Amino acid sequence: MAARPQLTPVLRRLRLSKAPARLASPAALHQSLSLPARTFGTTSVRALRRTSPVAAGPAKGGFTSDTYPDIKRDARFAELTPEHVAYFRSLLGSESAVLDGVTNPDDAAVADDIEPYNSDWMRKYRGHTRLVLRPSTTEEVSKILKYCNDNMLAVVPQGGNTGLVGGSVPVFDEIVINMSRMNRILDFDAVSGILVVEAGVILEVADQYLAERGHIFPLDLGAKGSCHVGGNVSTNAGGLRLLRYGSLHGTVLGLEAVLADGTVVDDLCRLRKNNTGYDLKQLFIGAEGTLGIVTKVSIQCPQRPAAQNVAFFGLESFDAAQQAFREAKGQLGEILSAFELMDETSQSLVQRVTGNKRPLEGQHPFYCLVETSGSNADHDAEKLSTFLESVLERGIVSDGTLADNETQARALWAWREGIPEALGHLGGTYKYDVSIPLNDLYKLVEDTKARIAEAGLLDETAEDKNDTSERPPVRAVVGYGHMGDANLHLNVSTRRFDARVEQVLEPFVYEWIAERQGSISAEHGLGLMKKKYIGYSRNPTMVGLMRNIKKSFDPNGILNPYKYL
Amino acid sequence: MAARPQLTPVLRRLRLSKAPARLASPAALHQSLSLPARTFGTTSVRALRRTSPVAAGPAKGGFTSDTYPDIKRDARFAELTPEHVAYFRSLLGSESAVLDGVTNPDDAAVADDIEPYNSDWMRKYRGHTRLVLRPSTTEEVSKILKYCNDNMLAVVPQGGNTGLVGGSVPVFDEIVINMSRMNRILDFDAVSGILVVEAGVILEVADQYLAERGHIFPLDLGAKGSCHVGGNVSTNAGGLRLLRYGSLHGTVLGLEAVLADGTVVDDLCRLRKNNTGYDLKQLFIGAEGTLGIVTKVSIQCPQRPAAQNVAFFGLESFDAAQQAFREAKGQLGEILSAFELMDETSQSLVQRVTGNKRPLEGQHPFYCLVETSGSNADHDAEKLSTFLESVLERGIVSDGTLADNETQARALWAWREGIPEALGHLGGTYKYDVSIPLNDLYKLVEDTKARIAEAGLLDETAEDKNDTSERPPVRAVVGYGHMGDANLHLNVSTRRFDARVEQVLEPFVYEWIAERQGSISAEHGLGLMKKKYIGYSRNPTMVGLMRNIKKSFDPNGILNPYKYL
Repeated sequence: MAARPQLTPVLRRLRLSKAPARLASPAALHQSLSLPARTFGTTSVRALRRTSPVAAGPAKGGFTSDTYPDIKRDARFAELTPEHVAYFRSLLGSESAVLDGVTNPDDAAVADDIEPYNSDWMRKYRGHTRLVLRPSTTEEVSKILKYCNDNMLAVVPQGGNTGLVGGSVPVFDEIVINMSRMNRILDFDAVSGILVVEAGVILEVADQYLAERGHIFPLDLGAKGSCHVGGNVSTNAGGLRLLRYGSLHGTVLGLEAVLADGTVVDDLCRLRKNNTGYDLKQLFIGAEGTLGIVTKVSIQCPQRPAAQNVAFFGLESFDAAQQAFREAKGQLGEILSAFELMDETSQSLVQRVTGNKRPLEGQHPFYCLVETSGSNADHDAEKLSTFLESVLERGIVSDGTLADNETQARALWAWREGIPEALGHLGGTYKYDVSIPLNDLYKLVEDTKARIAEAGLLDETAEDKNDTSERPPVRAVVGYGHMGDANLHLNVSTRRFDARVEQVLEPFVYEWIAERQGSISAEHGLGLMKKKYIGYSRNPTMVGLMRNIKKSFDPNGILNPYKYL
Repeated sequence: MAARPQLTPVLRRLRLSKAPARLASPAALHQSLSLPARTFGTTSVRALRRTSPVAAGPAKGGFTSDTYPDIKRDARFAELTPEHVAYFRSLLGSESAVLDGVTNPDDAAVADDIEPYNSDWMRKYRGHTRLVLRPSTTEEVSKILKYCNDNMLAVVPQGGNTGLVGGSVPVFDEIVINMSRMNRILDFDAVSGILVVEAGVILEVADQYLAERGHIFPLDLGAKGSCHVGGNVSTNAGGLRLLRYGSLHGTVLGLEAVLADGTVVDDLCRLRKNNTGYDLKQLFIGAEGTLGIVTKVSIQCPQRPAAQNVAFFGLESFDAAQQAFREAKGQLGEILSAFELMDETSQSLVQRVTGNKRPLEGQHPFYCLVETSGSNADHDAEKLSTFLESVLERGIVSDGTLADNETQARALWAWREGIPEALGHLGGTYKYDVSIPLNDLYKLVEDTKARIAEAGLLDETAEDKNDTSERPPVRAVVGYGHMGDANLHLNVSTRRFDARVEQVLEPFVYEWIAERQGSISAEHGLGLMKKKYIGYSRNPTMVGLMRNIKKSFDPNGILNPYKYL
């Protein structure tokens, strides 16, 4: 208790001499990360072997079919003909609803129009489709799929195309069914907070609509300006608010989906409770379009919090971070909306890239960012101050600061949200998005770092930009993430491509996670990238049951082939 | 604003001259409702036609096979033999793990031991089993099911046997697999709040274990003293905390289940985020044991709230109740943990039975009970007072009172929780547990009442107990329930059985709900009772998909036959 008198100034100190602008809005941040030669996972490393960095640049990514030569086009699927296209034209009417590169294969303008639907935003995956359909009603989706199923035409459902695992673009000539024209907000009940939208509504549009009505979408993520609600549901997006509002498996009340044969499954329930049979909608949540195309969504939206507060603190160990999290849960309880972890390496890299002054004096092995969202600003500030005083007094936290206003809050968030971008500026990064039981969360970073060092591949020297000496390839092994969800981002920052790094990392990382019953994909999904790694997180019995379900829902396998399972 | 000065005394007034003891603890309340001749749904009304009230009394209920003569034993299932029993004895060892009425069919003591496993707690459903198995490990469950599947022996999974729809007892000679010996708490992580238990752990035991560790089970219901966590998951129990903590589809992180053929599905994930394939566990949540037997559960448990506050108020219309709910969501936000609705009829019946003084002076068409649960008692009390002042000032609420202590809080809750018991004391009750979009929630009560009155079946006179005059059969049409979840309990209280009442009620009520896309079973499930009504809440496409899933998981249909679908 002796330390008490000095606490208040510590708490209120915010040492950012020049308030650093947030690095970017979440959506912009997301976009600014699209540096293919710099942000690569395993797959793009392989891509780099086969295509020069220039060829793999942002303007034109390599074809997925070249990157993954083992994947062959399924010969059961028919080739598109002008007759097929004529049917779709007669069905969809409007010119803009059919982008046809089949009938006029040499029309460069059409090819240019189609290109964005063939490539993901990172330009990591690129398909060969020559037909994009943009239905505007469920009935159109149903007729398209029935026709495709009858004619053995493969399709890729596509939302905002903001995924990270290549799930929303074709591999070969699959027809893209883009949902952006199904963008109507259908209903909102301000008393119950239940929102009903078409699948193509952009997340930020839905959230803005709700904001005007005092509510909030129970999901937030960097790509909110582009991603679709239907895509969020289809990928079971996690994002920033999961700690507070839970997963979409709990908040989605109902949905409408179209099966491969065109059958419309109307499960657009607007009820919080409905115990009449198996909860079928759950299968579509996170199925990445392999069981059906989600066309409408009904979701429970909470009241929008009136107040948000942010604190940032330094800790001496991961054990202390766990203690702090436990205290935060106890003392902040219902208002805790984020508890993020960053290690010292991640923060020093952000500082190196941004040149900004750190929020705390001195360095600490770990930092946490705590956010509260509640209905009463005074109450929340009091709870947060009391919490921070208590963890400081008891030595759980070494130093801490509270944001006094929104600008400061955003500045603090930038030290967490700016990590991926900072890494991207420094060079290539091996990225793993994993869930691990909390106790072991940071051990993955330590063990990975030790392994890389042991192999002689690590040199953490902050070299000058013009330094041309041949240093070991790995610059840093960084850990950060949503500690509140036990979701770690392990990032290995490299100076250049070196095959030994990948050999040291894989399958080591996946096996390490599997041993601890973690997940090799916490929130990004499987898509094409992690299709073959599912066995590290799901046993053969489960994968077998999943295959049975897929076969039962989509016997011809026309929905998003080559991916997921 | 002129009314302000007088608000505080109104708020703090609690007019219960003698603090009425809560009618019963939730568990006791649940038990005290087991009055078969008084608490009947459609099914038991039919039972009453065939068996005298005495024969249908608590000691011995009629057999379900007599009540439902249309249900025939499936001839594909084998009859139990002593050889079958010998196998199970060799497998399970311990005497108490096998209750065998097969080998010695005339042993009355064994028959008495088996009887409780044949009957539900209401004595509404009664089967003919002669074999009860009580496995203590997943491996035993697996071997039992494999043997049953190989030998075409039908089974009924049974948890605490506290269900309301006849789902957990046999109809004919199905083997009861009772899970009460799988009652170990396996793991708890105090940092993440993740609890792992075997299926047979009693809910209250789990909650007590968590209470000692500062956490709370994210589910509460009247039967907590008897029901099993595995049964809660298998029936997707809703209960009292759903408004705050959401459904089990969101809080259950993983489970282990055994399929009909003995395959163990190990999906006992302890991660908040795991996007690797279809979320299979969701299928078992609410499947009522028709897809497999849940053997272990992993669940996310929140921090236990430090403070609870309760307010009770009177309103002049259902519109006002909706407004009040909206205000409560806005002002109480994250601390709102219950918002219950009661109509005047329900309260006058409770008063008539208990003789207690009403919490508010004067009568109001509607009453609401608001509960908050939060981490700071002062903050919560301030929010609740401010809320109540604001709704009083604006005329949304006519009168209100705040509990000053736990005793008063329980007394207020008794006016809500005491309704079913009060109705039970007055006579037979037709009970419907339904979800309806909030706008229309109470209209079902009004329309039902009007229909009964039109048919000349209603007389709301509070007659003397000794009144022998032949009044119309319906005493009251009552509506109450979890307004926060749009979950209404419609109860029709009758003086005696009259076939005309049922004819007026059904299919009217089901059709009324179906027209508004409501649910005919909000939280009680389907079981035997509502198996044939699923079509009112699920369309043929969905029921067809459900049947496919059932067939895929349990091709021989040995799991809980004659029920659910």
